[in-house]
Amino acid sequence: MNALNQVLTNLDNNLDGAIERLFELLRIQSISTDPAYGPQCVLAADWLVKDLQSIGFDAKISPTAGQPMVLARHEGPAGAPHVLFYGHYDVQPVDPLGLWRTPPFEPVVKEGSDGISKIFARGAADDKGQLMTFVEAMRAWKQETGGLPVGVTILFEGEEESGSPSLIPFLEAHRKELAADIALVCDTSMWDRQTPAIATSLRGLVGEQVVITAANRDLHSGYYGAAAANPINILAQILADLRDADGAVTLPGFYDGVAEVPAELRETWKNLGRDDAALLGEVGLSVPAGEKGYSALEQTWSRPTCEINGIWGGYSDPGFKTVIPAEAGAKISFRLVGDQDPDKIRKSFRDFVTARLPKDCSASFEEHGGGRAIQLNYELPELEKATKALKDEWGRDTALVAMGGSIPVVGSFQSMLGMDSLLVGFSLSDDNIHSPNEKYDLPSFHKGMRSWARIVAALAE
Amino acid sequence: MNALNQVLTNLDNNLDGAIERLFELLRIQSISTDPAYGPQCVLAADWLVKDLQSIGFDAKISPTAGQPMVLARHEGPAGAPHVLFYGHYDVQPVDPLGLWRTPPFEPVVKEGSDGISKIFARGAADDKGQLMTFVEAMRAWKQETGGLPVGVTILFEGEEESGSPSLIPFLEAHRKELAADIALVCDTSMWDRQTPAIATSLRGLVGEQVVITAANRDLHSGYYGAAAANPINILAQILADLRDADGAVTLPGFYDGVAEVPAELRETWKNLGRDDAALLGEVGLSVPAGEKGYSALEQTWSRPTCEINGIWGGYSDPGFKTVIPAEAGAKISFRLVGDQDPDKIRKSFRDFVTARLPKDCSASFEEHGGGRAIQLNYELPELEKATKALKDEWGRDTALVAMGGSIPVVGSFQSMLGMDSLLVGFSLSDDNIHSPNEKYDLPSFHKGMRSWARIVAALAE
Repeated sequence: MNALNQVLTNLDNNLDGAIERLFELLRIQSISTDPAYGPQCVLAADWLVKDLQSIGFDAKISPTAGQPMVLARHEGPAGAPHVLFYGHYDVQPVDPLGLWRTPPFEPVVKEGSDGISKIFARGAADDKGQLMTFVEAMRAWKQETGGLPVGVTILFEGEEESGSPSLIPFLEAHRKELAADIALVCDTSMWDRQTPAIATSLRGLVGEQVVITAANRDLHSGYYGAAAANPINILAQILADLRDADGAVTLPGFYDGVAEVPAELRETWKNLGRDDAALLGEVGLSVPAGEKGYSALEQTWSRPTCEINGIWGGYSDPGFKTVIPAEAGAKISFRLVGDQDPDKIRKSFRDFVTARLPKDCSASFEEHGGGRAIQLNYELPELEKATKALKDEWGRDTALVAMGGSIPVVGSFQSMLGMDSLLVGFSLSDDNIHSPNEKYDLPSFHKGMRSWARIVAALAE
Repeated sequence: MNALNQVLTNLDNNLDGAIERLFELLRIQSISTDPAYGPQCVLAADWLVKDLQSIGFDAKISPTAGQPMVLARHEGPAGAPHVLFYGHYDVQPVDPLGLWRTPPFEPVVKEGSDGISKIFARGAADDKGQLMTFVEAMRAWKQETGGLPVGVTILFEGEEESGSPSLIPFLEAHRKELAADIALVCDTSMWDRQTPAIATSLRGLVGEQVVITAANRDLHSGYYGAAAANPINILAQILADLRDADGAVTLPGFYDGVAEVPAELRETWKNLGRDDAALLGEVGLSVPAGEKGYSALEQTWSRPTCEINGIWGGYSDPGFKTVIPAEAGAKISFRLVGDQDPDKIRKSFRDFVTARLPKDCSASFEEHGGGRAIQLNYELPELEKATKALKDEWGRDTALVAMGGSIPVVGSFQSMLGMDSLLVGFSLSDDNIHSPNEKYDLPSFHKGMRSWARIVAALAE
C-alpha cells in the first residue's frame, strides 16, 4: 500500500471525526458583513488556528483593521514545491431566517430526496465545508506519513463575504511569508454531481452603495406628493436607466475591455449541454435576463452585468403609510469580464447617478469591494497535474469552466504575488450558497478531501 | 355675557384640563397599520367613549372587522340642525424612532424657538389633538348651558391611517344613525399660523402594494447575475416607467376625468403668495418634482400623481451581500383629482405591471385603500356661517383652499349619505404629520376649541 492509498483510507475511516470538526466550525456565527458578529469571526479564526496547530502547522491569528487572518505554515520535503492554500471562514448573513428549515448555525446531516446525505448549515459549502476538505487531507497525510508531500502555507480570510477590505494591505505586508509556487483556492463548484471542475476564468466585481437624500424630513405624500422630490422615485429611475431595453449596461465606457468570446469557445460551452432550460430551470426561471443574443451560460460566464442586490426606502412593514421618505438607498454590484477597469466603472457609476439628480437632491456613496476579472493560463503544468488527480478520484475528465462569481483574492495573488491559482471546489449548483438552507453534499466533503490528498501528491511529483 | 362668551371663557379657564385629557389619549399607542397595535386601538376607542359619556353623550364602541368605531350622539334643541362630527383616533407608525427627540407616546409641551408652546407626540396633530378641539368645545357648551346649540353625532374611526377598510360597510349599516344636515371634519390645516382655512377640494387616493417574484429562492449574484431575472431590477424598471420625462403618469387612461384648473382659480392661488420657494423651501427642497408647467402648489392641489411610499428587496443591512433576491416589493399611492376613477386606475396599474413582467416572473397585489377626489359646493350656507365664525376667532378671512391629501370619508359621506362636509382644521404645515417629532401648536389646540364653539353656535342660527 503506497502512501497516498494509506492517506485515502485514513480519510475514509475518519469521516465521522471530520464531520464533527466541521460542525464545530459551522456552529460559530462568523458573519462578516454585520459588525455585530465581529467577535464570532475571531472565534472562528481561533478555532482554525488551534486545529491547524493540532496537525502540526505553525499557525497564528494575524490581526487586520477588520476581521483577523489565519496564517499557517508547514514545511515540505527538501526540494518539493510549496503551495499557498486559500479559504475563508466568514459566512453570509442568514436572512430571511424564517425560510430555514433547520437553524443556520446548528449543522445537521440529513438525507435528501435523492438519497444523498447533506450537511445543512450556513457556510456548509461557502466556505467552511470546502476549506476543511483541504485541512482534513493535510491531517491524514500527517497522520499516515508524519509529514506533507509539499510545503504548505494556509491563508484563511474572514472578510471574503464583505468585500475583503483588509486583504490587499495584508498581502502587501506579508509578501514573503505568502511566497509559494502556486495558490490553491477551494471556493468553487463542481460541473455537476459526477464531474469535477477547475475554474479558469472569473468575473470581477464592483460593489457600490448609494443613498439619495431629498427633503430634510419624511413628508406626507398627500400634502407634498408630486411637488416634493421623492428619493424612491428618483432612485428607481436611475437604477432603471442603468440597463437598456436589450439588457446592456448603459454606463459610459462600461464595455471598454470587454471582448467577445471566441466562436470556438462558445461552441465548447454549448457542447457542455447546460442550456437555458437546464441552467435557469433549477431555480424556477426560464428566460435569460441579460443581454440579448447570449445564452444564460454565456451571460454568466462571459458578459458583464449590473445587479441591484438590495433596495430600501420609505415604509415596508405591514399596512400602508403615505410617506415621501427623506432618503432611499440601494446596493449595486457590477460583474466584470476581460479588461474592464473596476476603478473607472465605479467612477462612471457615481457620475451617472450624480448627473441624474435633481439639483435639490444629493447622493452619498459607499464602496463595497472590487476587483478585476481573472483569466488563468491553460498551459500551467500544475493545471495538468491537478486535472489528472481529479480524474483518478472522480473517474471523469475535469471540466475547465468559467465562473460568474468573483474571487478577488485570485486577482490579488496574480497582481501582487505574481502567483497563479488553481480553483478547485466541490460545491454544487443546488447548494443554496448565500440563501436559506445552504448545504454541502456529504460526497462533496468526503471526495473533496480525497481529491486534495491526491492533488498535493500529484503536485509533488 | 351671552352663552357663547361664557363657553369661550370656560375653554380659556380649563385649558390645563384639556391638555391633560389630550395627553391621556396621546399616550395610547393606537397605530392602526400594524396589527401588533390592535389592542391599543381598542384602548383609544374605549377612552373616547368614556370621555364622551362623561360629557353626556350617548356613546358606544361599535365593532367592525378591523379597529372599532366610536359612535356617540347628543340631541340639540328642537328644530336645531344636526351635525355629524368626524375624526380618527388611530395614528401613523413612528419609525424611524431614532429621529424622535422625545418618545412619540410620551407627550410633552415644549416652547419652540419661535416662543410658541407646542405639544409633541405621535397623533398630536393627526388627529387626536384636532378631534379633541371639538370634544372640548362640546364639553364647555354642556358645562355652561347644560346642552348643545345643535344636535351632534360623533364618529371616530380607527383605521384612517390604514386605508379605512371598515368604513364603507360601517356607513352602509348605520345610515340612519349617521343622518345629519352636514358633516364637520377636523383633519386639515390652517393656511398659515394666523389664517384659518377650509378645504374645499381634496385629492383622491389609490393605494397599492406589489410584490414581484422571480427565482424560487435567493441566488448568488455572481453565479446567476445577468442570466437570472432580478426582481429589484424589474421592479425599478416598472416603477420608473410609471412617469415620463416630464413627470406625467404614463398609465393608460390615467388622465381620464382630469380637468385643467380654470385660469381664474390658478390666478387666485398664485395670489396666495405661497410660491415654489416658500412651499418647498421649508422642507429643504427647491425644484417642483411633478408635471412640467405647474407650480408646486398647483401640482399638489390640482394634479394627480404617483408616489412610491415604500420599497424593499434583497440585502439592506450594513455591509454587502451579493444576492439576487427571490422577490422585491413596493407600496405605491396615486393621488387623484377631478373625476378620476380609483377602480379603473387600480386596474390600469395592475395591467401595467403585469404586461411588463418577464414570463418567468409573477406579481401579487394588495389593495391599500382608495377614494375619489372631492370638490365641495362653494354655495353651501354652512360654509358661509363657518367662515364668519372663524373670522370672529382669528380676525382674518378664511382661506378656501385645495388639499393634496385624501380624506376618503368625505367622499363616502357625499356618495353614501348624501352629505356635504366642512373641512376645518388647525394643524400647520410644520407639524411633522406622519414624520418624527409630530407636534401641534398649543394655540392650534386652544383656538381650535374656541373656533368649534363658535362654529356650532353659528350653525344653530
